[in-house]
Amino acid sequence: MAQQGILIVISGPSGTGKGTICRELLRSNPRLKYSISATTRKPRTGEVDGVNYIFVARDQFQAMIHNNELLEWAEVYGNYYGTPRQYVLEQLQNGYDVVLEIDTQGAMKVKETFPEGVFIYIIPPSLDELADRIYKRGTDSLESIKTRLNCASVELAQAQNYHYVVVNDQVAAAVQKVEIIITAEKFRAERNTDLIQNLYRTRCS
Amino acid sequence: MAQQGILIVISGPSGTGKGTICRELLRSNPRLKYSISATTRKPRTGEVDGVNYIFVARDQFQAMIHNNELLEWAEVYGNYYGTPRQYVLEQLQNGYDVVLEIDTQGAMKVKETFPEGVFIYIIPPSLDELADRIYKRGTDSLESIKTRLNCASVELAQAQNYHYVVVNDQVAAAVQKVEIIITAEKFRAERNTDLIQNLYRTRCS
Repeated sequence: MAQQGILIVISGPSGTGKGTICRELLRSNPRLKYSISATTRKPRTGEVDGVNYIFVARDQFQAMIHNNELLEWAEVYGNYYGTPRQYVLEQLQNGYDVVLEIDTQGAMKVKETFPEGVFIYIIPPSLDELADRIYKRGTDSLESIKTRLNCASVELAQAQNYHYVVVNDQVAAAVQKVEIIITAEKFRAERNTDLIQNLYRTRCS
Repeated sequence: MAQQGILIVISGPSGTGKGTICRELLRSNPRLKYSISATTRKPRTGEVDGVNYIFVARDQFQAMIHNNELLEWAEVYGNYYGTPRQYVLEQLQNGYDVVLEIDTQGAMKVKETFPEGVFIYIIPPSLDELADRIYKRGTDSLESIKTRLNCASVELAQAQNYHYVVVNDQVAAAVQKVEIIITAEKFRAERNTDLIQNLYRTRCS
């Protein structure tokens, strides 16, 4: 029997590079599945529907909430974001690990349903560095950058509710750390109760 | 400030190869420190005092118990085994990881004092394999092998009290798994509270 997949939840303050880490992680681990969020926010330049996000209208999103089709959802900066439930459950049951990149609010909701998930918080080397990254990305106004940095300070307090904290100083190194965490989690005793019970059985048969 | 070292506790049924794994682990990771147990049992062929064990007389051991110099101790098959406390504490404070190879009884006592330790349980691929290994080691009588196998069945129930379970099918692979677990544990949120607090400070200063 294949071991059930692991739900890997990745969060971090906006601009901390968690998107890049997830992309690289998925690129170098083809067996990992990415849970695509649904959102009502407008696509940024280069973002593709069904790849980066499932872009939906507000009334569509509200129907998904109503029909309990979302594992978690939240309204952030006036937009809805949510995780379609069925895709995640199917992949896990088939033994695939699923990566979920969501904000802390969503992550904590998922943690209530999936305490056995692996919750990883990505942090920048410093908050100055974070401001610099958001500024260079060039997609936010100065006012928005200030809001994001204030939110970052609030969000950092959430780090203690995650299982792991990874500093994103170099993308490749951060990706490797996440890979090591996932590998180690495969050996957690609570994920291997079958293994131990099978060992008993060999003795008794 | 250096991160406090991690106490790594390794257990497993007798004959499961945990000794070999610890030896290989220490050989390839010179920064790891090995906590040498004190015991009243007689040295096996090739075992060196102060290297494999600290071999002491029964009255010496009882004095160590009386003076609270042991992190844990137990009487197994009529012999005392125990872990000298001071060495472990010093190494951890100096930022070194310490490997402790002890039986489940001792491990669970250590877990009461050090819940933040990493508890790894090594299991054989099967119990038949385990019987074979003990037999080939040639240090145990048939009666002793039977006792050890019965104890192994009881011990396996303890696996659920450990954080990780590693199957020792190939020594090199098992060692690598333990290394991955130790590396991943360095990223645990509860071991990195300083890191997060320092990030706050850069924002407020």
